[in-house]
Amino acid sequence: MKFNIKRTVLLNALSRVSRSVSLKSPLPVLTGIKFDLKTDGLILTGSDSDISIQTKVTEDIEIIETGSVVLSSKYILEIVRKIASDTISFEILDGALTRIDGGSSQFNLNGTPAFDYPRIDFSKKGTLITIDSEILKRLIEETSFATSENEIRPALTGVNFHAANNQLTCIATDSYRLAQATSPIPDDNTFNIIIPKKSLVEISRIIEKDEPIDIYVEDKKILFIIDEYMIISRLIDSSYPDTSRLISDYYEFELTVSSHTLLGAIDRTTLLSNEDKNLVTLTMDPDHVTMTSNSQEVGSVEEDLPKAFYKGEPLSISFSGKYLADAIRAINSDKVKLEFSAPMRPFIVKDLESDDNIQLVLPVRN
Amino acid sequence: MKFNIKRTVLLNALSRVSRSVSLKSPLPVLTGIKFDLKTDGLILTGSDSDISIQTKVTEDIEIIETGSVVLSSKYILEIVRKIASDTISFEILDGALTRIDGGSSQFNLNGTPAFDYPRIDFSKKGTLITIDSEILKRLIEETSFATSENEIRPALTGVNFHAANNQLTCIATDSYRLAQATSPIPDDNTFNIIIPKKSLVEISRIIEKDEPIDIYVEDKKILFIIDEYMIISRLIDSSYPDTSRLISDYYEFELTVSSHTLLGAIDRTTLLSNEDKNLVTLTMDPDHVTMTSNSQEVGSVEEDLPKAFYKGEPLSISFSGKYLADAIRAINSDKVKLEFSAPMRPFIVKDLESDDNIQLVLPVRN
Repeated sequence: MKFNIKRTVLLNALSRVSRSVSLKSPLPVLTGIKFDLKTDGLILTGSDSDISIQTKVTEDIEIIETGSVVLSSKYILEIVRKIASDTISFEILDGALTRIDGGSSQFNLNGTPAFDYPRIDFSKKGTLITIDSEILKRLIEETSFATSENEIRPALTGVNFHAANNQLTCIATDSYRLAQATSPIPDDNTFNIIIPKKSLVEISRIIEKDEPIDIYVEDKKILFIIDEYMIISRLIDSSYPDTSRLISDYYEFELTVSSHTLLGAIDRTTLLSNEDKNLVTLTMDPDHVTMTSNSQEVGSVEEDLPKAFYKGEPLSISFSGKYLADAIRAINSDKVKLEFSAPMRPFIVKDLESDDNIQLVLPVRN
Repeated sequence: MKFNIKRTVLLNALSRVSRSVSLKSPLPVLTGIKFDLKTDGLILTGSDSDISIQTKVTEDIEIIETGSVVLSSKYILEIVRKIASDTISFEILDGALTRIDGGSSQFNLNGTPAFDYPRIDFSKKGTLITIDSEILKRLIEETSFATSENEIRPALTGVNFHAANNQLTCIATDSYRLAQATSPIPDDNTFNIIIPKKSLVEISRIIEKDEPIDIYVEDKKILFIIDEYMIISRLIDSSYPDTSRLISDYYEFELTVSSHTLLGAIDRTTLLSNEDKNLVTLTMDPDHVTMTSNSQEVGSVEEDLPKAFYKGEPLSISFSGKYLADAIRAINSDKVKLEFSAPMRPFIVKDLESDDNIQLVLPVRN
């Protein structure tokens, strides 16, 4: 293996591929990135066995002699980041010992032979749907934060992607709050899968421009084709709970308020509260809306919510301020509407105009 | 206690005073800041018993009723930071329960009665010297990083300040490297004390403008008067080792090199080395200077140092790359001069023109 490559091009590709690499992988070879130099380009592969990323660099590279090697993700990324020259030269000296040259620096890095690297199947198989990258990014950002951190119910650690009747519905819940985002899709394919949150976060990070993304859904894995990158994620092998009855069709009371005002009030009201719970109480009547919290030990806070418009019977409801703040940030609009039915029933948060993104928060007995 | 105050003025004072407060103080009252409202201003005091900071706010404050209370440093700082209004009102409601009002927010914060707060003596006693704030800052920055983290020899955890014959000499060493910075001073006072590193770092942070600083040195403590702030630090009760013979008068060989080039070379050469040791080897003859490092497991690096001018016999010397980088940053000039006498003798790093700041690094057997 021998080639010269533009430093920024390699750094960009390595930065993204390395996102799939775990430095704590039980399989040592997976702490590395596989360099596979073909006559038409350099294929870079990283994997932590949950998620695998592959790309092919075909421009700004001068291929001298094909070959392959696995180089430590941690060291190769730092070397390419810190070498002070526009072009870097790579050459396998002996077995897997690789010389990396650039500027006044010369590194000899011990690699691992490429035949030790597991074979990862990036072939395009299964059900295909095509979705705009910006829409996929929106669906991920509006839901993935609401997944559970608790491994006891594996299904809840991922986002449920459900396609049917030209619509894609994404749902995440940790059983204390729920996020649902929907989008029309051109393909009338049906599937119902759970994608691990970590994979979705990496996919969202890799998306840089607005373009159509091909997604191939198989039984146990899913393949995303984003620009020059192929990303495979395992699917969570579990059935997702039926959450359809949590969101009711009818809410009697509603509060309309500026997102900025509400986020500011939550920020200050949760200041003195227990960090785990962040419990706040919203007390509403048509004349007056306040948010309060109380800690026996530290003290209490009361926030007036100016220009908050409430329609309904007087209502007092307690819940996690953090969950409401997460929901408002996911809605990402100037104003939000909160809809309530009763003090101990879940309430929803949404945009004033659209139902594409519905956030649901469960109240807490105070 | 009742007063109104401009939010930014209080935030600025609290931010600085709170730097002396440790949230883990064994004395719970010391996790708070003492508010002492007099007829002519608000005195704020913080202390972790090693360092104490006091200031008096006399402007942008409307004093309604004098009084005092201790408020949790953590909470009061966050409250004042996050309240959305220009002016904040304080009022003791009952005992130590304090109401803090601003914008649409109202906080009731449980305080501690001020009589529980220890008495701290900020009176001006002892030997006085006056020094320019920018010089004091320079002396601290050129030395304090070289103190030891190891509590076994308490003297080495602080910086030795030695005044005599109108000169102030500051020395820090962790016994693997040494930093010495000197400055002429107007007062011909004599003292020889050790100031804890942490106190010096806080003092350096509090200095904002160029002004003369009065320093009162007593047996067990030192008082700095910086702008509106009084800072007391305990002194380390130990004698400082005699380091005068470490820096020799005569070095045979010298290397002159751009600081930027040398820092870049260290950064890359230590990439593959053990993070604790960061061992590098400098190999010099008048024609060629290289820096290398070698890790059996990971690989090796070789850096050419272009435009490095070496005068002397061929020499190869191994040392901690991190210590040399620290020394170069402390020198803070475009070029540095390294002076050597033998492979296993300490070498020094200094500015080309001045001896005000001398950094010494001990070699390591490789």
